[in-house]
Amino acid sequence: VKEISRIPASWGAYAWSIGKEDQRRGIHALKVGTALTLVSLLYILEPLFKGVGKNAMWAVITVVVVLEFTAGATICKGLNRGFGTVMAASLAFIIELVAVRSGKIFRGVFIGSSVFLIGFAATYLRFFPSIKKNYDYGVVIFLLTFNLITVSSFRQDDVLPLARDRLSTIAIGCAICLFMSLFVLPNWSGEDLHSCTVRKFEGLARSVEACVDEYFRDQDKDDNILDKQASRASIHTGYRAVLDSKSSDENLAHYASWEPRHSMHCYSYPWQKYVKLGSVLRHFAYTVAALHGCLESEIQTPTSVRSLFRNPCTRVAREVAKVLQELAVSIRNHHRCAPDVLSDHLHEALQDLNSAIRAQPRLFLGAKHGSTNSRMLMELNSSKHTTSRTTLPSFKTDTASLLERKNMKADQPPERNERGTLGRTLSKIAITSLEFSEALPFAAFASLLVEMVVRLELVIEEVKDLERSANFKEFMEYDHLT
Amino acid sequence: VKEISRIPASWGAYAWSIGKEDQRRGIHALKVGTALTLVSLLYILEPLFKGVGKNAMWAVITVVVVLEFTAGATICKGLNRGFGTVMAASLAFIIELVAVRSGKIFRGVFIGSSVFLIGFAATYLRFFPSIKKNYDYGVVIFLLTFNLITVSSFRQDDVLPLARDRLSTIAIGCAICLFMSLFVLPNWSGEDLHSCTVRKFEGLARSVEACVDEYFRDQDKDDNILDKQASRASIHTGYRAVLDSKSSDENLAHYASWEPRHSMHCYSYPWQKYVKLGSVLRHFAYTVAALHGCLESEIQTPTSVRSLFRNPCTRVAREVAKVLQELAVSIRNHHRCAPDVLSDHLHEALQDLNSAIRAQPRLFLGAKHGSTNSRMLMELNSSKHTTSRTTLPSFKTDTASLLERKNMKADQPPERNERGTLGRTLSKIAITSLEFSEALPFAAFASLLVEMVVRLELVIEEVKDLERSANFKEFMEYDHLT
Repeated sequence: VKEISRIPASWGAYAWSIGKEDQRRGIHALKVGTALTLVSLLYILEPLFKGVGKNAMWAVITVVVVLEFTAGATICKGLNRGFGTVMAASLAFIIELVAVRSGKIFRGVFIGSSVFLIGFAATYLRFFPSIKKNYDYGVVIFLLTFNLITVSSFRQDDVLPLARDRLSTIAIGCAICLFMSLFVLPNWSGEDLHSCTVRKFEGLARSVEACVDEYFRDQDKDDNILDKQASRASIHTGYRAVLDSKSSDENLAHYASWEPRHSMHCYSYPWQKYVKLGSVLRHFAYTVAALHGCLESEIQTPTSVRSLFRNPCTRVAREVAKVLQELAVSIRNHHRCAPDVLSDHLHEALQDLNSAIRAQPRLFLGAKHGSTNSRMLMELNSSKHTTSRTTLPSFKTDTASLLERKNMKADQPPERNERGTLGRTLSKIAITSLEFSEALPFAAFASLLVEMVVRLELVIEEVKDLERSANFKEFMEYDHLT
Repeated sequence: VKEISRIPASWGAYAWSIGKEDQRRGIHALKVGTALTLVSLLYILEPLFKGVGKNAMWAVITVVVVLEFTAGATICKGLNRGFGTVMAASLAFIIELVAVRSGKIFRGVFIGSSVFLIGFAATYLRFFPSIKKNYDYGVVIFLLTFNLITVSSFRQDDVLPLARDRLSTIAIGCAICLFMSLFVLPNWSGEDLHSCTVRKFEGLARSVEACVDEYFRDQDKDDNILDKQASRASIHTGYRAVLDSKSSDENLAHYASWEPRHSMHCYSYPWQKYVKLGSVLRHFAYTVAALHGCLESEIQTPTSVRSLFRNPCTRVAREVAKVLQELAVSIRNHHRCAPDVLSDHLHEALQDLNSAIRAQPRLFLGAKHGSTNSRMLMELNSSKHTTSRTTLPSFKTDTASLLERKNMKADQPPERNERGTLGRTLSKIAITSLEFSEALPFAAFASLLVEMVVRLELVIEEVKDLERSANFKEFMEYDHLT
């Protein structure tokens, strides 16, 4: 018995958690309840009932169907419903004019064939992409109303009062819906889209940083498995949210375009720019996904080699993440981003990565030629340090440490070096056993990092475009400092 | 006047093209027209009207709202509408039992508060993910019907006949919809999902092949710009369709799960496996997107260097494309794929790529050290050729040809070598001016190719899993040959 009594409690907890996740859900449910009660009063209260009569039902239907979560969706549906009804009523009236003069049988045939024709045409129209996107609901309502009025007119002589009453009740229903969604704690699609875009930037920043950290994490000291899982999960959720955002972005932008402007700065708010920014961000996120792929790849550069490049790579990633964070802050505050958001630091970090890679040419030769390479390498390195722009302190001892590691590795059995995850894939192709240069995967990693910076530029251009067309406030210095 | 008369003609052409794109659209529109005419007959024909009376309207509404493009969607909506109506009617009946014994005022308050409560609860329920996914429409209909019946009961003494008539007309409407969508030229969501999955494989195969071809295309002889654009477009459409497929896949699988099984081989068809396969394919497509990124990257390996690896890379890509094509054929024919679909050819191609890369270690040194490297390289190469598994004929003259090219390049001004697309990005970071090793981008390309093969394995595993659970026909030899 105790078991059974626990079930409603767990349901309640679940329901509570859903409401807690986004408090606007509970509020929206309360709004729907209130709107329905209001519209029911039309029927229940005597003086109101005398005005609208039995057609109050249409107001109830309208409220149930039209009142949506965000204001934009409600306006879109409400206007679609309104226009669909008006147009259907007009068309039905024209058809009625023709049908009224004829006999019963001809009238039946005429109504039947017009129902068929309009049904065919309206359904076909719904396949047009532009109609489907904006007016799908309106066409359904048009079809519905047209059929109801035309068919009813067959047995009712005067169809005009019917259409008029229905229109007025639908108007009442729409008015209640619009009032509830526009003036009582409104949820704006535009704001959702805005904050969702900001969250995307933040998620990407986290992803990039966590990804590079994870790549250079010392795999031998697996100190904290939970920590590791958490960081891997954060990489994934960060860019996955961006990759999967296409349809929700488009929906939000579509509904947002129906909302009244809530900014005084420009005539029509450029919601489509958000969609475009979203697609550029997805383009950026493909690189992050590929970076993440490097983490999970079967072929891995040994930790010893990777650690040589930890500092410059981590620096590039931090700078990229910093730029993304700055963009997020500037969008959130409706401020323009700093003109030099792509900072000199990033430039320097790239230069460092560049010189670090050029300082280690021997890595791209197979491990087997270690002895020949290391000799040549020292020679190269000495000439390199004079040409490279900066000499990083952390790279001074690299040559020695690498030689040390090489020797250490030589002591271990060769299979150990090939990485132990072979068992995971069951196929006969043991790709890990191929002797690709050990540095090849790292080269891919570094190249993706650079590619990411290139795409970051595209993102910045798109953000600036958005900020221009949305008339964001001018960039101010204190903004940059906070 | 002639101008104006042309507008309807162009509209007509547009409408025709939409229907031609997918002929089922026109058929569906005809089906809707027919169903509406049938249901209108309930009202128009005298004997039928006597049976259902004015409530025939509900049948019309049902047909307009429920009849969807695919059978699964229609069943889903029809059942949701049916169950929603039945449950709402039962609940309204219970509330009526309580309300009927009390006075007019108490009755009004009681009805009003129950409308509010049920409105709140039903709207809140729609936020539950599991409800939203499967029963969203049912909850809306429940709320609609409950309100209509409860509110009507206030002024109508006997609400039972009303509910019964409404139920029976809705049942008639649903029956007509189900008949039209299940037995008259049905469109199955499951078949859509199946063929859409096959198309994804084919698109990816085209993408991979075109991408590698494009990468190794000789950029100097820009013989055919149209050709180039077409091939670039085919790369993009191929993988883009996969990347953007998430929501449409889930919808199709959801509707397909409502369809009666149309295979005799297993009890419930594993539509969710298609969704899972879709997500593994997206995982694969991220690599293709990254490969495509290599094509459009600002930093490019010079054509001369790239051409060294044309043969092995193209071979790997061809083999990958071949495997994808084979998987597409096996899925399309509901046959299991060959157990050795990941062929030895692919293995060999990878080995060749491996040895080609290991045969050119000097590429990963900067161009500035050409003289030191080329000496060492020859030394290396001679020792290499004895160990490498195969000596490709095309690689015999590489050392010589590369030296030649190096010299040629040295004659040109250095800006020419840095690739001319710099003007495209306006930022101050001229990433192309960084001196990353010229081979670094190629390393990324090769590494992505290998990564692609690894992910191909995951795809094959998922396909095999799907084929097992869907009880595809056993693999037969002749299949493999065609």
